Amino acid sequence: MTETSKAGGPDNPLSGTDRTRLRRLREEGRTDRAELHSVLAAGFLCHLGVVLDGVPMVVPTVYGATEDTLYLHGSVASRSLVAAPEATVCVTVTHVDGLVLARSVFEHSVNYRCAMVYGVPRPVTDPEEKLEGLRVLTEQAAPGQWDYARRPNGKELAATTLLALDLTEASVKISADPPDDADTPDAALGLWAGQLPLRQTWSAPVPDPALPAGIDPPAHIAARAGTDYS
Amino acid sequence: MTETSKAGGPDNPLSGTDRTRLRRLREEGRTDRAELHSVLAAGFLCHLGVVLDGVPMVVPTVYGATEDTLYLHGSVASRSLVAAPEATVCVTVTHVDGLVLARSVFEHSVNYRCAMVYGVPRPVTDPEEKLEGLRVLTEQAAPGQWDYARRPNGKELAATTLLALDLTEASVKISADPPDDADTPDAALGLWAGQLPLRQTWSAPVPDPALPAGIDPPAHIAARAGTDYS
Repeated sequence: MTETSKAGGPDNPLSGTDRTRLRRLREEGRTDRAELHSVLAAGFLCHLGVVLDGVPMVVPTVYGATEDTLYLHGSVASRSLVAAPEATVCVTVTHVDGLVLARSVFEHSVNYRCAMVYGVPRPVTDPEEKLEGLRVLTEQAAPGQWDYARRPNGKELAATTLLALDLTEASVKISADPPDDADTPDAALGLWAGQLPLRQTWSAPVPDPALPAGIDPPAHIAARAGTDYS
Repeated sequence: MTETSKAGGPDNPLSGTDRTRLRRLREEGRTDRAELHSVLAAGFLCHLGVVLDGVPMVVPTVYGATEDTLYLHGSVASRSLVAAPEATVCVTVTHVDGLVLARSVFEHSVNYRCAMVYGVPRPVTDPEEKLEGLRVLTEQAAPGQWDYARRPNGKELAATTLLALDLTEASVKISADPPDDADTPDAALGLWAGQLPLRQTWSAPVPDPALPAGIDPPAHIAARAGTDYS
């Protein structure tokens, strides 16, 4: 039994392989599926790592998560997939929650939530699954748009590279703590210490300059202005 | 001459290698050094990609940029560095600026700024350069803290893994456009289209619960509340 699976929930612990066993900051590793899904649900952009000609390539791309599958827009990785179709990829989703400002520079850190998923991605070819995967991906970033905008037609579906990654090998790290040098000699320095939180919010929608007058943003878009993201 | 170097500035174009020559969305690729530095300066967290036992690993870590060097906190990658000290890494910095909501799902996209840097990282061992690199890294995330907090002592310096990456092989992609399906048959659908911007701001500083009463945050921290990040 590995470090990470020990801490996992009894029903469906994340598999803890040698890769996802955390080597640093073990106290920050989490393995509950609920925490994995919470981190994934809070975003829509991941960093996809592939190996191309022996060299790592890290590209941002959009994703959508279901209970057991991560769907990825795969165009940016298509070259690596053709070159090494059975290769393992790493998908990392990170939300930066703020800075931890300690009394010493050495104890400075970042509060964040991070999920890492490993697996061999499966190109989605079945049109029905592709449509469903694109729905998941679209709704993750822009809830309501799947029912509002025109859905992909056959030609567009064929032109889209969609990847599916099983959510079986994953790890989650969450750091949400105040500075931890309050009980060191540095406390005597009398310096301020604490957190500087970072907040991400949606602004008011900006109409396409080419939009005819009189078309207002629908409620599912307008209502997001001012709300928190991640 | 490559695709990317063609567009570079005459003085110091980013080198365009086979890796950084963009294969997709070429219109979004930029190569001006000024744009690279602008994207790097707007953040402090990158995704570092390394290859470990043939598998990509993408980890978030903090960085600081000078004119020609990217300093990275290297602890998270230390295992890979020991295993393959001469291996090339990929560092990606991405700022998500908002969603592009088009008339069709197919034309939906994300506005973002992304810098990718490739190179063989050099572990910084000289104490003076290490101190300077940590200053750059600290000031990038928390301007003013280097002069305010206690600086690293010899023991702490020795315990810190700092990497330096030359800013020679890099590419920048910036996407900041409205939806581009205004001149397609989809415009006749009469749907709203535009952008939903995402804004990241610093919140008010939160004192360490263990902080004695009467220590206020210094001006360089307090003044950031409400200001934009990235």
